[in-house]
Amino acid sequence: MTITGSPTGVDHGLAGDETLDVVAIGNAIVDVLVQADDRFLDDQGLTKGTMALVDEAQAQRLYGSVGAGLESSGGSAANTVAGLAQLGSRAGFIGRVRDDQLGAIFSHDIRAVGACFATPAATAGASTARCLILVTPDAQRTMCTYLGASVGLDPVDLDLEMVSRARVLYLEGYLWDSEPAKRAFIAAAEVARAHGGEVALSLSDAFCVERHRDSFLELVDGHVDLLFANEIEITALYRANTFAEAVEQVRGRCRVAALTRSEAGSLVLGGGDSHLIEPVTLGPLVDTTGAGDLYAAGFLHAYTRGLDLQTCGRLGSLCAGQVVTQLGPRCQVDLRELARRQLALEPLSSNQAP
Amino acid sequence: MTITGSPTGVDHGLAGDETLDVVAIGNAIVDVLVQADDRFLDDQGLTKGTMALVDEAQAQRLYGSVGAGLESSGGSAANTVAGLAQLGSRAGFIGRVRDDQLGAIFSHDIRAVGACFATPAATAGASTARCLILVTPDAQRTMCTYLGASVGLDPVDLDLEMVSRARVLYLEGYLWDSEPAKRAFIAAAEVARAHGGEVALSLSDAFCVERHRDSFLELVDGHVDLLFANEIEITALYRANTFAEAVEQVRGRCRVAALTRSEAGSLVLGGGDSHLIEPVTLGPLVDTTGAGDLYAAGFLHAYTRGLDLQTCGRLGSLCAGQVVTQLGPRCQVDLRELARRQLALEPLSSNQAP
Repeated sequence: MTITGSPTGVDHGLAGDETLDVVAIGNAIVDVLVQADDRFLDDQGLTKGTMALVDEAQAQRLYGSVGAGLESSGGSAANTVAGLAQLGSRAGFIGRVRDDQLGAIFSHDIRAVGACFATPAATAGASTARCLILVTPDAQRTMCTYLGASVGLDPVDLDLEMVSRARVLYLEGYLWDSEPAKRAFIAAAEVARAHGGEVALSLSDAFCVERHRDSFLELVDGHVDLLFANEIEITALYRANTFAEAVEQVRGRCRVAALTRSEAGSLVLGGGDSHLIEPVTLGPLVDTTGAGDLYAAGFLHAYTRGLDLQTCGRLGSLCAGQVVTQLGPRCQVDLRELARRQLALEPLSSNQAP
Repeated sequence: MTITGSPTGVDHGLAGDETLDVVAIGNAIVDVLVQADDRFLDDQGLTKGTMALVDEAQAQRLYGSVGAGLESSGGSAANTVAGLAQLGSRAGFIGRVRDDQLGAIFSHDIRAVGACFATPAATAGASTARCLILVTPDAQRTMCTYLGASVGLDPVDLDLEMVSRARVLYLEGYLWDSEPAKRAFIAAAEVARAHGGEVALSLSDAFCVERHRDSFLELVDGHVDLLFANEIEITALYRANTFAEAVEQVRGRCRVAALTRSEAGSLVLGGGDSHLIEPVTLGPLVDTTGAGDLYAAGFLHAYTRGLDLQTCGRLGSLCAGQVVTQLGPRCQVDLRELARRQLALEPLSSNQAP
């Protein structure tokens, strides 16, 4: 467990000519999970369930005022990639860490589940991104993110050869907070589509949608085949008054929209139909960190195997239902075995892809 | 949550003239918790339930072959100090980290629970110590430790002023693997006793006992008032054939001996009597990491409040029973509230100390 030195140069174990089910671009982040109460959120001016960006000084001040933590690799799209790899998908991740101890932890963990990760670690500049996740007694998480080295993701860092082999290129909306990362994503989306891949976007967070509404609207109409959003995000995107109104707005704008609603399950729009998906409860609710990320993992695993949208939604619900029973955003159980047991989904080859 | 820079210079929040209930000297370690199966232990030549020392190259190789991890501050005596502080004791820790990201995590976490930690972080040399903890499906933990910066703990680093204020000076046996740390401990033990404090020792690990049997025997007879050991360790120390034989050997050699036996509870010897303590079960067994450390925390919290040995043992059992229901060696629940609810122990001032 030597957590020093540069996390570059590791063989990612995937042959250079293989098709990848999903390649994701996102912020490469290590999470610091701490318990907090509602009063602490109020005192710090934080809005429960959302993500706030902080600079290094704010991060330092906040960290100094919270209790002992548990560290886990995180990052929204990276969590999705880890879930996909655990399910048996061939998945790759593109994101930027620094050559520091947290960067080595991030790099180890995403490769350890079998994902391909080869973005060179920065050798200078800001340290690896960290997210302070405050878990309240109601299991909700509230995040304060210091983007650090992640912000520097540039088109130059993109492994476009890997992108060209993706069936689905997946983006987290959080990247929109960084101009170079945003440009990197648009460049990658063009390459993916030129090679027959589809483009997926997760809206990530309501505040993130508020910050970047116009460019998200443009992106959804112009580049996105699969859209992932929760109720608050999709409502914010279309400035709708109700979920139903937002549903009517998004219908037909992209091939598939998967809209999650926490304990109300999810609604999947596609092929002119709507599919209502029940939520899955596997135990007491402990921490909602990673719920949306794991929903996307389950969904995309089934999707890239050519399964129907109902099954995609059900596998998404199952993976989300698992991750909320534990602390942290990376599943600590065998997801393949869970899918087999709960949905009778046998390990699937991706040759049946759409 | 800025995890960079030097973790020195933080005000530990305890006035310089206050008595401390417990001051501990130990290895300052960050744990990397990963799931593994028995076959992996066999393949790596590891003995379940024990601790093996590894060098940086071995650590690197092992880390490369395990799955994704969860990082948590650890270190045997540091876990005990964290538990003591969570219970409401005034506790201090002496141990050596490097001024790196893991050192900052360790320093934050021990201070965040209210313990005093002021050992200067090393500014050169080996990085902060790490322990790869392999948790098998039976909840047993097997540890591979890279001692890193911990090894450099020297009498020079000792805050003897803090030691002089301790009611109990607590040592982990693991320090015996480092010559300078061992000398530091003996120097501290003399200061503690000269100021009316008692000296406690935890034997830590059967292999550690095997490596240093003669000097442990000498230490127990010459310097130790309270001895903590599990069944295997105490049997190894006296080369006994049975636990009963080891009990007869240790009786009378120190003021108190607290001997833990996992699911058989513990036996506390002291004042010419033997006290059988029942184990406490609070939920399914998840991970035994920290069980002995938290037993010592509960025991010493009650001991430094002048409570009887039966109560000391019961609070030890309760804290150990809590930590084994979760992943990692630091309790994620309010131990004070647990003690109040389960043992009707109200928050106790330490003025009633023995």
